[in-house]
Amino acid sequence: MSTPNIHGIIGYTITPFTANGESVDLDALGRSIDRLIDSGVHAIAPLGSTGEGAYLSDAEWDQVSEFSLRHVAKRVPTIVSVSDLTTAKAVRRARFAEAHGADVVMVLPASYWKLSEAEILAHYRAIGESIGVPIMLYNNPATSGTDLSVELILRIFNAVDNVTMVKESTGDIQRMHKLQLLGEGQVPFYNGCNPLALEAFAAGAKGWCTAAPNLIPQLNLDLYEAVLANDLSKARELFYRQLPLLDFILKGGLPATIKAGLRMTGLEVGDPRLPVFALGEAGRGQLQGLLNALR
Amino acid sequence: MSTPNIHGIIGYTITPFTANGESVDLDALGRSIDRLIDSGVHAIAPLGSTGEGAYLSDAEWDQVSEFSLRHVAKRVPTIVSVSDLTTAKAVRRARFAEAHGADVVMVLPASYWKLSEAEILAHYRAIGESIGVPIMLYNNPATSGTDLSVELILRIFNAVDNVTMVKESTGDIQRMHKLQLLGEGQVPFYNGCNPLALEAFAAGAKGWCTAAPNLIPQLNLDLYEAVLANDLSKARELFYRQLPLLDFILKGGLPATIKAGLRMTGLEVGDPRLPVFALGEAGRGQLQGLLNALR
Amino acid sequence: MSTPNIHGIIGYTITPFTANGESVDLDALGRSIDRLIDSGVHAIAPLGSTGEGAYLSDAEWDQVSEFSLRHVAKRVPTIVSVSDLTTAKAVRRARFAEAHGADVVMVLPASYWKLSEAEILAHYRAIGESIGVPIMLYNNPATSGTDLSVELILRIFNAVDNVTMVKESTGDIQRMHKLQLLGEGQVPFYNGCNPLALEAFAAGAKGWCTAAPNLIPQLNLDLYEAVLANDLSKARELFYRQLPLLDFILKGGLPATIKAGLRMTGLEVGDPRLPVFALGEAGRGQLQGLLNALR
Amino acid sequence: MSTPNIHGIIGYTITPFTANGESVDLDALGRSIDRLIDSGVHAIAPLGSTGEGAYLSDAEWDQVSEFSLRHVAKRVPTIVSVSDLTTAKAVRRARFAEAHGADVVMVLPASYWKLSEAEILAHYRAIGESIGVPIMLYNNPATSGTDLSVELILRIFNAVDNVTMVKESTGDIQRMHKLQLLGEGQVPFYNGCNPLALEAFAAGAKGWCTAAPNLIPQLNLDLYEAVLANDLSKARELFYRQLPLLDFILKGGLPATIKAGLRMTGLEVGDPRLPVFALGEAGRGQLQGLLNALR
Repeated sequence: MSTPNIHGIIGYTITPFTANGESVDLDALGRSIDRLIDSGVHAIAPLGSTGEGAYLSDAEWDQVSEFSLRHVAKRVPTIVSVSDLTTAKAVRRARFAEAHGADVVMVLPASYWKLSEAEILAHYRAIGESIGVPIMLYNNPATSGTDLSVELILRIFNAVDNVTMVKESTGDIQRMHKLQLLGEGQVPFYNGCNPLALEAFAAGAKGWCTAAPNLIPQLNLDLYEAVLANDLSKARELFYRQLPLLDFILKGGLPATIKAGLRMTGLEVGDPRLPVFALGEAGRGQLQGLLNALR
Repeated sequence: MSTPNIHGIIGYTITPFTANGESVDLDALGRSIDRLIDSGVHAIAPLGSTGEGAYLSDAEWDQVSEFSLRHVAKRVPTIVSVSDLTTAKAVRRARFAEAHGADVVMVLPASYWKLSEAEILAHYRAIGESIGVPIMLYNNPATSGTDLSVELILRIFNAVDNVTMVKESTGDIQRMHKLQLLGEGQVPFYNGCNPLALEAFAAGAKGWCTAAPNLIPQLNLDLYEAVLANDLSKARELFYRQLPLLDFILKGGLPATIKAGLRMTGLEVGDPRLPVFALGEAGRGQLQGLLNALR
Repeated sequence: MSTPNIHGIIGYTITPFTANGESVDLDALGRSIDRLIDSGVHAIAPLGSTGEGAYLSDAEWDQVSEFSLRHVAKRVPTIVSVSDLTTAKAVRRARFAEAHGADVVMVLPASYWKLSEAEILAHYRAIGESIGVPIMLYNNPATSGTDLSVELILRIFNAVDNVTMVKESTGDIQRMHKLQLLGEGQVPFYNGCNPLALEAFAAGAKGWCTAAPNLIPQLNLDLYEAVLANDLSKARELFYRQLPLLDFILKGGLPATIKAGLRMTGLEVGDPRLPVFALGEAGRGQLQGLLNALR
Repeated sequence: MSTPNIHGIIGYTITPFTANGESVDLDALGRSIDRLIDSGVHAIAPLGSTGEGAYLSDAEWDQVSEFSLRHVAKRVPTIVSVSDLTTAKAVRRARFAEAHGADVVMVLPASYWKLSEAEILAHYRAIGESIGVPIMLYNNPATSGTDLSVELILRIFNAVDNVTMVKESTGDIQRMHKLQLLGEGQVPFYNGCNPLALEAFAAGAKGWCTAAPNLIPQLNLDLYEAVLANDLSKARELFYRQLPLLDFILKGGLPATIKAGLRMTGLEVGDPRLPVFALGEAGRGQLQGLLNALR
């Protein structure tokens, strides 16, 4: 298994819908991918939380996955989220993504019933054994309902060969410190919590998984560059400049805010699927103000 | 809309799988339903949490729903859980259940992205407007990730005509007190937290939604009868007798523990779907001990 | 050691201050005690949370303790709260209370630094060994910052001879169930959470520790009597009748609300000590309304 | 009011007790202060959490306060914690500290009963109006039981003239981001959570309030210097080097671990007051190992 060098700004794609919300707008999806790549992101991640992966039918999921991989066409590495409630379905998605060219698959331990540590480990093992590409383990209790302790993450990292990266989204920066200390610096970790972008890089994160590059790619890339250049003052200044927008898109819900923002910048990608609302008028006003201030 | 009188012990069905776990065992499902009805439960609730509804494909969900309703055949009222992540899918399920004879549908505001109060209300309204049977609103933050405040529940209850019942599963008995006080005694509420069975009845709950009657129906029914007979001492005694089992099936995960228990009593219903494990050997020993003690 | 039979309604006293707030008004304290006893409470508990014990100087604490015990004069049993941050000070207070006639002392594991289980056990042991009267162990994480698990409570109960009663104030009724089950019915427990009064008695609590009898003693006593009479319907009706007041005095802060209520009923007891505010005008209006409704 | 320039490493003193634990060992206190100042800390903070201020009698508190201020003798600025449960007592301590030469007083809104925002503001206002030196507002819900929102902190900062600094110890780095953004960069904030030392400086904290310089002053100072030098890589390396010790002293309880560590380095300062235990044998072994590794 060759592990691609995943680092820097990892851009998450939205999933555009047609006007009535019933089908996926592949044309708009292609254009949103091109924008991200042209802006300079270091990798593309389709079908994550921002991509409303959880709200798609299986057929739609396959369609978006296949199209995204073909459209990226290896211009940058791809990380496809293949999480599903049952192990069998997650395995199917992981194989599908691999078969269509994904460089990495990302797995959140989605659950309805709370899972034991043994169940979570077995879930990752089953997926790992069914594919030949690396897995980025994803911890995000706010959406999955399951919080993986650092100790459990390391057990999985050590037990499943192709779990080679960790995306941390608890919002608690001390988890990254613990990953670094207990993992003896050998566990590449990535930040999935936008408002912790500066802190995660300070803590040694290799990359930032974010939907923000759909709207402010240059600020995201500049922050990463300042960190690479060891310029803390500049990184801090760049971080505080973009923080109001990062806070806004997180609190407003990524699909709603990113889709609204793309529309403001001329790319029509439809609305999120109900019950999630499109961004309301007051929210759009705020977002436009935040975007204007960053121009 | 005629509202059926839902009260007493509302038995939740499991969803039996065949040995390889790949398909639903309808024959076993029919027998488990008969057992519940023969034991005296006052209503049947298919496809709830215990029924692994979240782990079924759409085709399987339809199959289980249709079969369960036909098999119950109005011997007792039915309450079908139709929750789904998108409003469109939940509406489809609600209509399907109504078309096949469900007396009530139950709706949990399942979510991936956190929903605002307006989004939750719109979700219930859309489902309510699409069917002619009553909705039991279900609050269970542990599985849905969304906690509905009593105030929000009452707003929905007042705004959506066919939301006429509330199932409360937070584990906080004070929610029921608040429903009773703020609802001025006009909001029928049902308990969905097994270890609160006694307290919920003391607080005035009309019924107890539970998978326990798959294993100990008589004790469940006796507790309800003692409450109807205004005999607190007897109710307390009956409650403490069954509490160790109620605690066990909840902590062990209802699909795993109920399926193991049914097997012990001679009904083979297969295992839960992975990543959920079947009950392990130690757990089976404990469960057998608890069941023996209650004979 | 003879253990007094502590049961029923255990009335908590306030600590009246003079107009400038600088000294204790013993005359008013005596009258408030007489009111409680005349109304029929089964025991008196001075210097609890309601009694602002934490806000008194050591000299004041001694003064209130000595006066209260002398004034109750064994008409009913007394339970004096002797909690303090250091073990040495709590021991001193426990001895003082015993020397002046307390029947029971109550101990909350007050802490600034989080205590380990061994530290908590040693604290109870040291106090227990220094006195000859029983200790009521008190668990109230909201004020003490320390939550004692049921397992730890039982370890202390078993390890320290004169810890013979438990007061539970977490607001989680399942703690009482667990005390009852794990304690095999041998651990007398008392409810310290007003809005759980009905549920705690349903669960088997021997008594209710409450400041409410300062304002509505008859309703409190009637609820207890209904439970003794095994009349659940009547107990439920009585509970819901007084619940709005119970909720109000808890949320408004017991010293502020009880002192305001006593003033409304003709007994001037001053205000709480700053930084705690006296009940504001809006609150007084609400309280008067609640009291009027219960007349 | 002249505001001293408080910045960098702010060293917290322990309070040494004599062998029987009954009185304060002023000689040892003087030597521990000299060590801190000689090691280069930028300020000294007596009677904080580490100093067991909450466990002292009023007479002891006065003694330690007066001695510490006289012994520091303006070699570096001093910040005396004057928190107390009642406003009157906190005012008394604040005046005492000012009268004996404190440059700054620190106030935690210590509480037994939960305080409203108005009560907290009034508490700070009353203290502020009674003294002429600046107040460092201290937010630490883990010890005070009260969590001050950033909005409330800013209200107090704006309403009370001599509240001019904020010490944040929630452990949530996003609070500092919010203080920086909402305070428009005008609110000097200090970090009180040892394991967030790197992140707080990255976020722009002016100083680090810490007991660690009692044991590893050079590493603490070096981290601050690396940040001043804008050298993120070096700061990160220095942070991870000292993090195991920072984690250890926090989790083990600062009085117990710092006192044990001082003893290991030749300064006998006695044990913490009961119920807090001295560090046990296993803990001492760990601490010695951590200290050895940092030599």
